[in-house]
Amino acid sequence: MAAAAPPPPPTPAPEPAMGPPEDSPVGHPMFARIRLATPSDVPHIHKMIHQMAVFERLTHLCSATENSLSSTLFSPTTKPFHSFTIFLLEVSPNPFTDSVITDPSFTPVVKVVHLDLPIDDPEKETFTTNAVNDVSVAGFVLFFPNYSTFLAKPGFYIEDLFVRDCFRRKGFGKMLLSTVAKQAVKMGYGRVEWVVLDWNVNAIKFYEEMGAKILHEWRVCRLTGDALEAYGIAD
Amino acid sequence: MAAAAPPPPPTPAPEPAMGPPEDSPVGHPMFARIRLATPSDVPHIHKMIHQMAVFERLTHLCSATENSLSSTLFSPTTKPFHSFTIFLLEVSPNPFTDSVITDPSFTPVVKVVHLDLPIDDPEKETFTTNAVNDVSVAGFVLFFPNYSTFLAKPGFYIEDLFVRDCFRRKGFGKMLLSTVAKQAVKMGYGRVEWVVLDWNVNAIKFYEEMGAKILHEWRVCRLTGDALEAYGIAD
Repeated sequence: MAAAAPPPPPTPAPEPAMGPPEDSPVGHPMFARIRLATPSDVPHIHKMIHQMAVFERLTHLCSATENSLSSTLFSPTTKPFHSFTIFLLEVSPNPFTDSVITDPSFTPVVKVVHLDLPIDDPEKETFTTNAVNDVSVAGFVLFFPNYSTFLAKPGFYIEDLFVRDCFRRKGFGKMLLSTVAKQAVKMGYGRVEWVVLDWNVNAIKFYEEMGAKILHEWRVCRLTGDALEAYGIAD
Repeated sequence: MAAAAPPPPPTPAPEPAMGPPEDSPVGHPMFARIRLATPSDVPHIHKMIHQMAVFERLTHLCSATENSLSSTLFSPTTKPFHSFTIFLLEVSPNPFTDSVITDPSFTPVVKVVHLDLPIDDPEKETFTTNAVNDVSVAGFVLFFPNYSTFLAKPGFYIEDLFVRDCFRRKGFGKMLLSTVAKQAVKMGYGRVEWVVLDWNVNAIKFYEEMGAKILHEWRVCRLTGDALEAYGIAD
């Protein structure tokens, strides 16, 4: 064991398995953009809501249609950040060239991710938003204002955060959540909140790494269906 | 034991201890009204938020002031039922004679409660809204729209439900919650939701009797304070 051969001279460390650093010119670049959704995005949003229901095995509870989503999410009273708001995540192998500033209150966020391998999207055609520039929808986050009386401040409540299957584990969920948090800070809001299933340890770990606290003592109460409708006819 | 004296003839049942039925003319009538709060109600709302913090032993977390409540709850973007909304509960020994329809979307709800004994309110002067007619504030509920993507419908989320100490256990909490539920049905909304502490068995029992389901598997995640502010300066 003694007098073994000397160790080889140090060699340059290989690139980590997850790919080169973000600003490196090597690898397969993927351009990712977060912008406010518009009524013309409803077909894509509807498909993703359905995929979310399939993932959660809750399709029997999902009655959303393109029409019902359009009329409730894009009514005259739904002003971005002051009512129901959707950030859409788009990806492209090419830099974005079109302008998508649909509201003066939000400037789209663009990032470049360098991948070891290009992503093979089996539903690319279904989710294309700009065929010329090869842009497709990869995910979304839906949120709206809530309010804390103790802080006397609004906050944001995130109802859904979804990244399509082939785009997962690449930091896009973090990008969507961070963009909501950043907007909350920009508006002087006090909290960003959402809910998680208590057995989803991976999600809880991810959220805690993002800086969130899990409120273990609180339970959600829900009045819905026939029990709610009964109040409509009561005195 | 046998051959005991025959039972006395039946006599009219005494009124139950909780007081005669609502529509009976006997007892001490108390008129209760639920109306939309206005900016001039902020001092009373602020005092009740402070009392709620004392009750929950959370005064160290309560930083609300009259100014911060006014500017966030009654800004130009806060339209009743489409943003933060407060129903105020007023009580009086006399029928209400003033008109308080402040918004065409809601007609105030009035009920008469017959009490065995009049309520002694030690803070009556503090909470008076109409001294001539002996009207004072007894509680409030603060709520705002939320959204379910599966239903593709808005709902209401109740942030706070509060009844002042001397007015508790008289059905006013139920009256406030029912009025929110009824408004939700009127607007075609799909859910009314709120949270409860898991050890508060009395509150859970009350909510279940109101028709609510407790969602035992979900946990609230909260990003706030320094952890939230960090997103404001991050790339």
